[in-house]
Amino acid sequence: MTSAIPPASPAAALKVEGLAFHAQDAEPRTDFQHLYHHLNTVCRSWAPSRLKELFRYMGREGMLSLAGGLPHPELFPFQKLDVLVYDYNTRLAAGNTSIGTVDLSVPKTKSASHATDLSTALQYGDAVGLPALQAIIGRFVKRIYSPAYDEYQVVLSHGSTDGWHKVVSMFLEYGDTILVEAQTYPASQALWIPMGCTTAPVTLDGDGMVPEALDKMLDNWHRDHAGRKKPRLMYCIPVGQNPTGSTLTAQRKRKIYDICVRHDIIICEDDPYYFLQFPTYDSQADHEVPATVPTLDVPKFIDSLEPSFLKYDYDGRVIRLDTFSKTIAPGLRLGWMIANPLFAERLLRASELFTQTPAGWSQAIVTELLTTWGDDGYLTWVNNLRETYIARRNWMCSFIDKHFDVDWASMSADGAPVYFKSSTGRHQGPVAFKFVPPKAGMFVWLTIELGQNPHYQRLKSAAPARDDAPSAEEQWMTEVWEQLAEARVLLVPGSYYASWHWQGHPTAGEAISSDLAFFRLSFSMMKRDGMDEAIRRMEQVFKADWYGA
Amino acid sequence: MTSAIPPASPAAALKVEGLAFHAQDAEPRTDFQHLYHHLNTVCRSWAPSRLKELFRYMGREGMLSLAGGLPHPELFPFQKLDVLVYDYNTRLAAGNTSIGTVDLSVPKTKSASHATDLSTALQYGDAVGLPALQAIIGRFVKRIYSPAYDEYQVVLSHGSTDGWHKVVSMFLEYGDTILVEAQTYPASQALWIPMGCTTAPVTLDGDGMVPEALDKMLDNWHRDHAGRKKPRLMYCIPVGQNPTGSTLTAQRKRKIYDICVRHDIIICEDDPYYFLQFPTYDSQADHEVPATVPTLDVPKFIDSLEPSFLKYDYDGRVIRLDTFSKTIAPGLRLGWMIANPLFAERLLRASELFTQTPAGWSQAIVTELLTTWGDDGYLTWVNNLRETYIARRNWMCSFIDKHFDVDWASMSADGAPVYFKSSTGRHQGPVAFKFVPPKAGMFVWLTIELGQNPHYQRLKSAAPARDDAPSAEEQWMTEVWEQLAEARVLLVPGSYYASWHWQGHPTAGEAISSDLAFFRLSFSMMKRDGMDEAIRRMEQVFKADWYGA
Repeated sequence: MTSAIPPASPAAALKVEGLAFHAQDAEPRTDFQHLYHHLNTVCRSWAPSRLKELFRYMGREGMLSLAGGLPHPELFPFQKLDVLVYDYNTRLAAGNTSIGTVDLSVPKTKSASHATDLSTALQYGDAVGLPALQAIIGRFVKRIYSPAYDEYQVVLSHGSTDGWHKVVSMFLEYGDTILVEAQTYPASQALWIPMGCTTAPVTLDGDGMVPEALDKMLDNWHRDHAGRKKPRLMYCIPVGQNPTGSTLTAQRKRKIYDICVRHDIIICEDDPYYFLQFPTYDSQADHEVPATVPTLDVPKFIDSLEPSFLKYDYDGRVIRLDTFSKTIAPGLRLGWMIANPLFAERLLRASELFTQTPAGWSQAIVTELLTTWGDDGYLTWVNNLRETYIARRNWMCSFIDKHFDVDWASMSADGAPVYFKSSTGRHQGPVAFKFVPPKAGMFVWLTIELGQNPHYQRLKSAAPARDDAPSAEEQWMTEVWEQLAEARVLLVPGSYYASWHWQGHPTAGEAISSDLAFFRLSFSMMKRDGMDEAIRRMEQVFKADWYGA
Repeated sequence: MTSAIPPASPAAALKVEGLAFHAQDAEPRTDFQHLYHHLNTVCRSWAPSRLKELFRYMGREGMLSLAGGLPHPELFPFQKLDVLVYDYNTRLAAGNTSIGTVDLSVPKTKSASHATDLSTALQYGDAVGLPALQAIIGRFVKRIYSPAYDEYQVVLSHGSTDGWHKVVSMFLEYGDTILVEAQTYPASQALWIPMGCTTAPVTLDGDGMVPEALDKMLDNWHRDHAGRKKPRLMYCIPVGQNPTGSTLTAQRKRKIYDICVRHDIIICEDDPYYFLQFPTYDSQADHEVPATVPTLDVPKFIDSLEPSFLKYDYDGRVIRLDTFSKTIAPGLRLGWMIANPLFAERLLRASELFTQTPAGWSQAIVTELLTTWGDDGYLTWVNNLRETYIARRNWMCSFIDKHFDVDWASMSADGAPVYFKSSTGRHQGPVAFKFVPPKAGMFVWLTIELGQNPHYQRLKSAAPARDDAPSAEEQWMTEVWEQLAEARVLLVPGSYYASWHWQGHPTAGEAISSDLAFFRLSFSMMKRDGMDEAIRRMEQVFKADWYGA
């Protein structure tokens, strides 16, 4: 196998810095065969290309190769690539009009002043990718995530959709059960549903998955789920969770990690919003982005971020999915996975068989960009990005505050209660919804308690047309969503994110949502004035639904 | 479903131009449900994203959307992309020193003078890809391949590795048997072997798969293969086949197509070398590339190419895999698939679930390149590319002629016999190997009859160490390959391309290679002088093997 970098350190050098384990005596692993049984039958048989064995001979002195069937790189029509990029210290969304730019160029052939060249980047390459890019990501992973063992490897992906598909192809078998947050990302589910797999949803609040709920579910699995295989894989979006916007705290991560060790569960951490972590929303603060950009205190910035599951992963059972989609651009189709060497080798084989390496343009441009900006420059860019999303998060929360009446003082893990305003002050009726101002990501999640909603009561008391008719909750969401669309504001109904239960057998021991509805609001794209107007329209539709137009 | 372009024509407009069917009365299909049973269980359940349903509402006047979780395109750090490209009328490998270049640029945002922009190309997009690119490919497919029915659709891929993986995911089930050329591409096999699938290899000569052998195998399937499922899928590299360099003639394609209709078999045509089709090798001709480039007669060029299986596909059972890897650059990771609407819709779902759309850089750069060059410009580029590969094919054949003694007069479908030279003229011993100068692609395939080879005889008479020991043929190839590597020339042993038989049960009714060895030589990469020297070294090693050093 061509080994992904960073190279494995000598076992003697193994230690874990600055890390207090829950199980104090746990030693980081140097061998990962204890996880081999997790690989499914098909994945175990993925074989390396025998042609690639030959390529090792190519470097021998005087060798003339008639072996490789590659197109001649002189016949690629591209001479040189130039990209005009912003300076890393630019805050676009803050209305900063003086935008520094940098000219990046990638020459056709190797040159001392460039990290890569087009003849290499545009040729067939092994699945490991460009060495310069591997080196940058390797440094980055060590510095930001401080994995608990040194032998972790980096495998490039075509973005996290591709990464997740490869993880699913590696582990899941027909009829498996996957541990997920109670509300989860539909595109990830869409892969496992056709494979005959279902979910075991774990209770979720503003601080992410609740460890005690997970523990209880797993301890009582065989009692409560007779005939169902115990889960072996957890799929988790720990930061700015899609759709709920919740972020797992470090403390919960440690607890969940330990539970997963005890029950032999692999954790797949899908973490596209990692760098969009925000300070707690302050309803009293000024919500403008400062016009001047101070020099970033990099160690302080890194320290401000919740740790990755990797930090606790002494046992090698975490696969982390990372992507440049949210920090540079989705169209790169470039990301990476971090895994122990046993899993990383399988993921490399999957890359050879399914996709080959990510696009050379994306690799070359990101390599030159990150080389030009430098490691701290990239983190400064990412921090400025974060600042603009903080401003957007703040706008959305303050517009909810403006058009509704938020009872910040009654905030709990389930969120702050939000009332309709009346002309005489705070409305005394039931809460319109609850929400937690998110501490990361792009989403605000509304939880609506429908127990006293008259429209919902009518739906609930009507006999369902057929056994498989949508629930009254889902009907209410659909009908209100239609009224919202009619009023020209587009949200996403929460029913899109319901985890895929075992049909007809809701997970025993877990609370099933009842008399609850949800909507997901995104604050990433809308301009400030549009956001204000959108929340105003939402308020009118919700009010009409509760009290009549 | 978001429909791939070209849009389906009205059924009333259906007709097939310039196409003589083998079955004269066959009508092109307007409905493809007769192929539904080919889809495997998992693929039938791939569902479109419900979120994408919402995006249809986004275009409504006055709509304010808080639905999509996209990063804000103002926050992509890229301002402008410039690529310096060669003029399409450039022949680099011919030593042409005056290289015309063109400046391509892609702006950040929409402009009238560009086919696309970075804000679109670098954002999340639906799996259909950039509309301008879809339009270019749609025109190209119609003009070059003239598919037999009008409803075919184009689905972008991340190159043909990705395309083939999606086809495999769509059709194959555990234990299936796949029809393949007797020697086939190992990376394609590597996908189906772990799935418990095996091959039914079809006899191959210089003109590709032999229809009569296919017909006989399928007619007698149940008699000869008791207990094995009859194949439902054919994997075929029809032009410049990898590894044998053979090219299926139009006549054989029609016969094979009709056999596949009769036996209800889907044909996957993996055709990366389509445009590298060459005139028959002329051992007497001058092998220099003309220094001046005449204006290309485009209709004549198109007419010179063997038709695709699509031309005969009145029944909609061909999936064609196309790629820009050989005509522009592999690092684009950009290609496309052509299929009937039933299959194309499933392939789009696979793209959403497995990979998303190909990289935006690749889409944007190819779109601008092809828009700048124009349709005929691209074909001129491709023709010039072909000319340089013709020169390389000719070099390799003439160096074989120089270092060996080729008996061109005795050429058959199995190739021309090639003898060692002796000091007194043509050697009277057994032939060193046979080969067919390829009419396409990048490969020359040597077939070595080992019946009288003394080294092979020793290997064959030695009792095999274990039941699963490699055959004497494979041992010979390995040992000679090592001698070649020792002499500093790298070929690929033919054993790498052996199709994956049902273990221990060679396909009855098919000739099994016996006393035969093979090597694959690539002429795509080596410079002229290196190629001369490489063939000289090969001659020395082969001669030493037959006659002692």
